[in-house]
Amino acid sequence: MAIAYRQVLGSEKLENKEPLPSSSSCSPVILTQDELKKLAAYKAVEYVESGMVVGLGTGSTAKHAVDRIGELLRQGKLKNIVGIPTSKMTHEQAVSLGIPLSDLNAHPIVDLAIDGADEVDPYMNLVKGRGGSLLREKMVEAASKKFIVIVDESKLVGHLGGSGLAMPVEIVPFCWEFTLKRLEMLFMEAGCVGKLRTGPRDTTHPFVTDNGNYIIDLYFKKDMGDLKAASDAILRLAGVVEHGMFLDMATTLIVAGKLGITVANK
Amino acid sequence: MAIAYRQVLGSEKLENKEPLPSSSSCSPVILTQDELKKLAAYKAVEYVESGMVVGLGTGSTAKHAVDRIGELLRQGKLKNIVGIPTSKMTHEQAVSLGIPLSDLNAHPIVDLAIDGADEVDPYMNLVKGRGGSLLREKMVEAASKKFIVIVDESKLVGHLGGSGLAMPVEIVPFCWEFTLKRLEMLFMEAGCVGKLRTGPRDTTHPFVTDNGNYIIDLYFKKDMGDLKAASDAILRLAGVVEHGMFLDMATTLIVAGKLGITVANK
Repeated sequence: MAIAYRQVLGSEKLENKEPLPSSSSCSPVILTQDELKKLAAYKAVEYVESGMVVGLGTGSTAKHAVDRIGELLRQGKLKNIVGIPTSKMTHEQAVSLGIPLSDLNAHPIVDLAIDGADEVDPYMNLVKGRGGSLLREKMVEAASKKFIVIVDESKLVGHLGGSGLAMPVEIVPFCWEFTLKRLEMLFMEAGCVGKLRTGPRDTTHPFVTDNGNYIIDLYFKKDMGDLKAASDAILRLAGVVEHGMFLDMATTLIVAGKLGITVANK
Repeated sequence: MAIAYRQVLGSEKLENKEPLPSSSSCSPVILTQDELKKLAAYKAVEYVESGMVVGLGTGSTAKHAVDRIGELLRQGKLKNIVGIPTSKMTHEQAVSLGIPLSDLNAHPIVDLAIDGADEVDPYMNLVKGRGGSLLREKMVEAASKKFIVIVDESKLVGHLGGSGLAMPVEIVPFCWEFTLKRLEMLFMEAGCVGKLRTGPRDTTHPFVTDNGNYIIDLYFKKDMGDLKAASDAILRLAGVVEHGMFLDMATTLIVAGKLGITVANK
């Protein structure tokens, strides 16, 4: 079932259990984007229960959720958590926090995953992977019974690609220029332009994913149309490993905005 | 258009320009499987013209075609050929033969590709990749205007997977056991069993593709049904890079059998 989150704002489904400081009429406080991310992350961790297998996301928003899980474990408020990290970076963060970790081989079913997103459309479809971990994130989150997406309100878009920022595609390094051209041709009508991601330290070298692959960032001038058809078309290109559209996967969306925290369920 | 090659045998489309020694009533000669492969390969190379960009396949049958192209270049019967190898192994073979080489970045359109196959069904759908080069082969052959498949008659099957041998799937090494289980579950009704490919030197270590990935070999007890649906279902699994079914790609099939060489076009 598709949920239009815009309809949720102001409806009965709106939960605002933790009014923001800015809602006070006496001393309005402007929250930074990072503080909004933290609010959404802390709200998501309320769904984590002792004994759960939890998918640990990657990125600036998910980092707050992982920190919070570590904190609650230290305080004894959560017990027997098994974390499934979605990247080497999150693995390191979780280890430093003392969160017990495992993987999908040992735990093919994950109770709950919490992760950020780069874009969220009104149907809870996502663009993820601007941080470069889209493949492992998708593997873990596809294996999750519940998948909570946490974002600040700047990530809400009318349609995927609508922010004008990148939709990433992970590809094998072999003949990447050729694959880039084929991706652009696939979405020629949507004015698609692809760029090889470089960095993080040196813009003259390709960015390499945890899986040893490259990332092509696709930029769209227009709506790419039917998302499922677009997904299949990308996956059918030999040379493509995975793309950053997460369609019909999120089950809960938590948005932190200036008016408070919004929770929408699918 | 689907072509049933069995209908081609004995029809007007049957070409048997090079009758085999065994067709002589005086001194029947039994050809080995390798000699049959060579016959098919040599027939395919008749389609190569000077100035062409040619996709060079991988495997025991394609190797004969690459050898033959090298021979014709040396003899001056072919000129200005640009070869696009489909594996590191073929690259080395072609270099040793003095065949000028390039890649898909420089030549995104290939005039003609010649390659073997592990299975061919009556609609010219293929299983490839038992040699481990399915991804690069698919990239090159999908970019080819014509794709000639060369096999000995032992490769003809009623349906893909029908030989009881492997249908390979290239996957990322990360959590490969999990991906193996998900692949098996996808084809549970077809009695699918998956095995991690090992070797070539040491069966205790996974086989690693040219792209740094692993191969899961899938074995089917029953027909997997709608091949396009099966293809999309496999590609939608996060963790899968590519599979060995080449659907609707071959344009010409050359089969070497005891009754001669059969050529079928799509």
